[in-house]
Amino acid sequence: MTGPRLTPLAASLPATVPFVGPETQERQRGRPFAARVGANESGFGPAPSVVQAIRNAAPDAWMYGDPESHDLRHALAAHHGIAPETIVVGEGIDGLLGYLVRLLVGPGDSVVTSDGAYPTFNYHVAGFGGTLHKVPYRDDHEDPEALVVRAAETGAKLIYLSNPDNPMGTWHDAETIARTIAAVPEGCVLLLDEAYVEFAPDGTAPPIDPSDARVIRMRTFSKAHGLAGMRIGYAIGHPELILAFNKVRNHFGMSRLSQQAALASLADQAHLAGTLQRVASARSRIAEIGAANGLRALPSATNFVTLDCGRDGEHARALLAALVARDVFVRMPFVAPEDRCIRISCAPDAELDIVAEALRKALAELR
Amino acid sequence: MTGPRLTPLAASLPATVPFVGPETQERQRGRPFAARVGANESGFGPAPSVVQAIRNAAPDAWMYGDPESHDLRHALAAHHGIAPETIVVGEGIDGLLGYLVRLLVGPGDSVVTSDGAYPTFNYHVAGFGGTLHKVPYRDDHEDPEALVVRAAETGAKLIYLSNPDNPMGTWHDAETIARTIAAVPEGCVLLLDEAYVEFAPDGTAPPIDPSDARVIRMRTFSKAHGLAGMRIGYAIGHPELILAFNKVRNHFGMSRLSQQAALASLADQAHLAGTLQRVASARSRIAEIGAANGLRALPSATNFVTLDCGRDGEHARALLAALVARDVFVRMPFVAPEDRCIRISCAPDAELDIVAEALRKALAELR
Repeated sequence: MTGPRLTPLAASLPATVPFVGPETQERQRGRPFAARVGANESGFGPAPSVVQAIRNAAPDAWMYGDPESHDLRHALAAHHGIAPETIVVGEGIDGLLGYLVRLLVGPGDSVVTSDGAYPTFNYHVAGFGGTLHKVPYRDDHEDPEALVVRAAETGAKLIYLSNPDNPMGTWHDAETIARTIAAVPEGCVLLLDEAYVEFAPDGTAPPIDPSDARVIRMRTFSKAHGLAGMRIGYAIGHPELILAFNKVRNHFGMSRLSQQAALASLADQAHLAGTLQRVASARSRIAEIGAANGLRALPSATNFVTLDCGRDGEHARALLAALVARDVFVRMPFVAPEDRCIRISCAPDAELDIVAEALRKALAELR
Repeated sequence: MTGPRLTPLAASLPATVPFVGPETQERQRGRPFAARVGANESGFGPAPSVVQAIRNAAPDAWMYGDPESHDLRHALAAHHGIAPETIVVGEGIDGLLGYLVRLLVGPGDSVVTSDGAYPTFNYHVAGFGGTLHKVPYRDDHEDPEALVVRAAETGAKLIYLSNPDNPMGTWHDAETIARTIAAVPEGCVLLLDEAYVEFAPDGTAPPIDPSDARVIRMRTFSKAHGLAGMRIGYAIGHPELILAFNKVRNHFGMSRLSQQAALASLADQAHLAGTLQRVASARSRIAEIGAANGLRALPSATNFVTLDCGRDGEHARALLAALVARDVFVRMPFVAPEDRCIRISCAPDAELDIVAEALRKALAELR
C-alpha cells in the first residue's frame, strides 16, 4: 500500500476491538446463543409504547434527525430539573466518551481510571495519545479516594469513575461521590459514568449540579430503557464544557428514530418502574442460581450480577468458556483479582433457566 | 469554569455547526416548513419493504447492533462484487469522514479540497488540526486536475473530491476520475465522495478496485435509499486502510435498526429504480420551474437541481431568505461565484408545487 500515510499516533494504535460482539461469537461457533446475558442489555425489552413510537416514525426515516436533539434535550432537562444547555446527546455513552476524551486529552496528557474498569474508555484515551494511570479496585469496589490522589500526583486532566460500577456491580453512596467531586484537583474533570444508576438504591446519585465544572455525568438509554440498539446516551455538565462538544461531535450522528424512541421511553415511566422491579427479581434469582452452585453473588446496584467463582482467573475463564460452549453468552472482568468472577446480565426467567442449567453442567464438567 | 482544560487544538476550534438543521429554523420561525427541499433528503421516502423491516426489528431494539455490521458488509460486498474486508460501515458519510481524517491528518498536515465543497469535510480537517488548501471550481465543476496539482505542491495527505458534486450537481465521467486517481501523488489518498452516484448517468463511476490504495470511496443510504434519518454510510478502500478504521471508530456506534434497514433497502432494487425515475422527473420539473422564472438550471447528476439566479451572491441570499419566509426550506452554495445559485432537492410534486408558487412570489417581491 503506497497511498495512505497514517498519523504517527494512528499508526501506533492496535486495530483491537474493545468488545467482541455476541454475533461475532455466534458466527465463529456456527450457532446462536440460547441465552444473551453478556452485555448487560435489557432482555425485558423496550416499552411497548416505545416500539410503537419507532413503528410510527419509520416512514420518516428519510429525514435527517434534528442535529441539536432539541426535543430530547428539553425533555431530559425537564426530567432532571436542569437547563437544556447542560445536556448533550450522543451516539451512546461510547460516542460521548470519545468526544470528551478528544476535547480534553492530547498526547502525553494524564488520565486516571481503575484497573479493570470500562475498556472502551481506555480505548479512547489511547486513541488520542493520553497516558493512562490505573488504580486498583479495593474490595471489589472502585476506590474514589485513590483515584483522586493519583490524579493529583499525575496532574491528570480526566478521571473515570463509574457508579454503580461495571463490571463488579458494586456502588458508593451519594455522600462518597460528592466528597470525591469536591476533592477533584484543580484543572481536572471527573467523568462520572452513571449508565446503571437507575438500578441503584436511592441515595446513590448525588444531586445534579451542572454549575460544578469539576464533574461531567453520563447516562444512557441502553440499560434501564432497553434501547441499546438505538445508540442514545447523554452527558450532563457545565454549560461551557457541554457547548464544547459542538466543536468535535458528529452533528448529524443521531438517528431520527433513536431520538423519537428516547422521547417515548422517557415519557413511559411506568414501564421503567416495571423494568426496575423485574431487574431486582432477576438479581435475586441469579444470586440464588449462584448459591445453588456454591458461587457467591456480589451485591449489585446494576442490571447484572457478578458471581465470585471462588478461585482464580484461570478457573473463571474456563467456566466462562464452558458456559459459552453451552450457548450462554456471558462476559467477565478482565483484570485480577476481579477476574475470579463472571458477570451475568438480568434477563427473563426463561433465559435464566438456561443459565442455571448451563452453570450446573459447566461446573460439573470442570470438577 | 475551573475544571476542564481543553487541549490547545480543541480550545482553538470554533463551536460552529456545519449545517443548521431545518428543525432549528422551524423553531426560530415559529412555524413548520411547507416544503423540505434543502438537505437533499429523499422525499420519495424509504421503500415500503424497508419501513416494514424497521417495524419488524423494533422489538429487538434492546440488543446492541453487531459492531462489525457483518451482514450488511457482506451484502454490500456481494452487491459490488468486492471482498467484505474492503468495506467499513459507519454513522453516515459524516461519521466516516471524521474517522478517515483522524487516521490521516494531524496538526499541520496538508489537505486539499475545492473552495465551496462539502463543509463537513472541512470541519473535520480543522478539528484534527489539518491545513486546508482550496482550489476554485472551474465552470461550476470541481477541478480534478487542479486538486491533484495542489496536492503535489503542498505534500497533501488527503484530497476531497465529490462526484457528482454537491452543491453544484455537476459531474465528471469515469475516465476523468480514473485519470485523477492515477495522478494522485505518492503518499496521498483521494477521498472520492460518491453520495449521489446512484443518480448519475452510467459511466460516471469508475470500476471499483479496492487494491488501489490511492483512493477511498464513500457511499450512503441517505440519498437514493431515502434513509438519511438512519445514519448509514460506508467506505470502500484498500483493506489495510479499511482495517485501520477499527483503531478509532465507535465500534458499537451503528444502530441495530439502521443495519436492518440498510439490508432491506439494498435488497429492494425495484424501489431504488423507481426512486431514480422519480428523481429524474423531479429534476426536469425543477428545471421547468426555474425556466418559468427566468432561472437557468445547471445540469444535475444528483437528487437536487442548482438554479443559477443570474446575479451575485447577495441576490441569491435575498431570494433564499424570501423562500424561507414563504415556508420553503432550501439551501445554497457558500462561496462565490457559485453562491449566485440556490439548490433545490428533488421532491414529490405537491412539494414542488409549493416551491414553484413560492419562487414566483419571492422573485416578484425582490423586483
